[in-house]
Amino acid sequence: MPELRHDPIQKRWVIISVERGKRPRDFQLPPEVEKSGESCPFCEGHEDRTPPEIFAIRKKGSSPNGPGWEVRVIPNKFPALMIEGDLERKGMGVYDRMRGIGAHEVVIETPSHNLSMADMSVEHIVKVLDTYRLRWLDLKNDERFKYILIFKNHGAAAGASLSHSHSQIIATPITPKIVAIELESAKEHFMHKNRCLFCDILDYEMEKYERIIVSNNNFVAYAPYASRFPFEINIMPKRHNHNFAELTQEELLDFAEILKDILLRIKIGLRNPPFNFVLHTVPNVKAKPRRSFYWDTIEWDFHWHLEIIPRLTKIAGFEWGTGFYINPTPPEDAAKFLRDLSFYSKDVIVE
Amino acid sequence: MPELRHDPIQKRWVIISVERGKRPRDFQLPPEVEKSGESCPFCEGHEDRTPPEIFAIRKKGSSPNGPGWEVRVIPNKFPALMIEGDLERKGMGVYDRMRGIGAHEVVIETPSHNLSMADMSVEHIVKVLDTYRLRWLDLKNDERFKYILIFKNHGAAAGASLSHSHSQIIATPITPKIVAIELESAKEHFMHKNRCLFCDILDYEMEKYERIIVSNNNFVAYAPYASRFPFEINIMPKRHNHNFAELTQEELLDFAEILKDILLRIKIGLRNPPFNFVLHTVPNVKAKPRRSFYWDTIEWDFHWHLEIIPRLTKIAGFEWGTGFYINPTPPEDAAKFLRDLSFYSKDVIVE
Repeated sequence: MPELRHDPIQKRWVIISVERGKRPRDFQLPPEVEKSGESCPFCEGHEDRTPPEIFAIRKKGSSPNGPGWEVRVIPNKFPALMIEGDLERKGMGVYDRMRGIGAHEVVIETPSHNLSMADMSVEHIVKVLDTYRLRWLDLKNDERFKYILIFKNHGAAAGASLSHSHSQIIATPITPKIVAIELESAKEHFMHKNRCLFCDILDYEMEKYERIIVSNNNFVAYAPYASRFPFEINIMPKRHNHNFAELTQEELLDFAEILKDILLRIKIGLRNPPFNFVLHTVPNVKAKPRRSFYWDTIEWDFHWHLEIIPRLTKIAGFEWGTGFYINPTPPEDAAKFLRDLSFYSKDVIVE
Repeated sequence: MPELRHDPIQKRWVIISVERGKRPRDFQLPPEVEKSGESCPFCEGHEDRTPPEIFAIRKKGSSPNGPGWEVRVIPNKFPALMIEGDLERKGMGVYDRMRGIGAHEVVIETPSHNLSMADMSVEHIVKVLDTYRLRWLDLKNDERFKYILIFKNHGAAAGASLSHSHSQIIATPITPKIVAIELESAKEHFMHKNRCLFCDILDYEMEKYERIIVSNNNFVAYAPYASRFPFEINIMPKRHNHNFAELTQEELLDFAEILKDILLRIKIGLRNPPFNFVLHTVPNVKAKPRRSFYWDTIEWDFHWHLEIIPRLTKIAGFEWGTGFYINPTPPEDAAKFLRDLSFYSKDVIVE
């Protein structure tokens, strides 16, 4: 049974997930090995090699757990958290723990083994994003889940254990630390100024324009002023909206369009580096966690966004011990580089 | 000129260090390349290839910036922060910045090109640790420096750009975030309980023993209860002492002994993985930073320690976006594995 443990010195929760590594020497997750689709459990026709599907967007006439799907959601075969049971919070001497209750799902984004998200059609990316939205809305009905995290690891060095394009959803009994800090900052800003912090940042960035990479009717992609890593990118909706799941059909399309645009710029301009993206949205407002003071005034409280971190530098080890980052690439230079990519064309598919 | 920038959403400072990467595409620091000592600027006899030394432990009769040294401290050739000037704090629209003022030094731990710290004699490690201490005491006289960070990157994947064994010292105008959180936790615990949080943890760990790896008269090495990474290790002094620089000669010797012991266990047991260590001690108490509330009651406020993070897993990308860690190796298993290493002997030198 996985366990959530609290560190009283650094004030953070950690998932200790024994199921994922068996013996002390097996600390490595399986590396990204699949070269061909033959042995890949995520490929169309191999549906029997995964746990039964939770959700799928399917062609008419196809059956669950068979071919004919476009996007498919399955439980993670090596889940970091377990779906069954109660939290059983308890103290352990100076420490605190709870059982590792939660959900861990995999979104297989495409039946094609070699298609990366950057090369999918905008229409297909809409289906992937809509799948995120529908899974979020379903998981939020479980009141044990205080936060539902949607994220993607691309490339082995970014933590992907299979090369077939996929993302993950983890529903956790706590709000992750960085999201909690963002919620606090937004609340504090509103209390002082009666304005959304994220809206203020967007206004300032659009005026300056030096860190903007690209924008469309409903979204802006920019390099954050205090980027921790080279080519860190935020995609933010222009409309103030705390909840990703409440985006409109028109916004969904524009989100897919700007996401494809940015992923292609990263792929072409930075030579297909490993990357991670993480969706920051509100906590599960139906849940009523103890010790929480966020969600009573949730309307002004947050502004959802997507954070993309290309994994270009190796200088992050020291940073783990201090929380202090040294970034050798000014975000203005990163933004200019990605904005000006002259060989970039939306119609080119690059493998 | 490097710059410190504050992120108003995640409430952290970042060093934007243009000097370290030249163009947007040069985001990589130079990789660890030196295979032989011939081209290594840190080797004895190559003193003219580094900036002039700041400090050295030398054999009688040898001259500064020539051979004959045992430990040598030089300014970093590619400093993340600059020593000259004032902070010039100012607002930039919604953001805050200051100039990147600070010191960035390199401690060359040995004249021998191939000797890693695990294989140095305890007597030599005492000299390295004493060098840390003396540099800390010197740098603290500069009131612009609020924190003096001592850390080591071992191996290219941990961020070392040269293979010749060295550590680094960075004096910064702010206290790094994770250290600041630790200071707050310690203060809060004392306010509630009139006891040191770290002393309480040490008591509990020594009683349980399941996460202890090794101990001697003055130090304990253990795997933290809520370890973020497999084989994360803390070395903590038994005596309550907030300041690393105030350790006694006897403690210095015991610290060197347990550090060598742990580094050898990591090297042999985990097959010489890349690792980082970071020394967490008090902020520079002579400095009187604005917006600080820590140092008026500094005596009970902290308990210095060394954090060691072997770089074994690749799963840290998602963690950067959330602050939420999944650790596949329970610290009890990691501690048992390192504690029980049967082929371990302090006298064996392994290259």
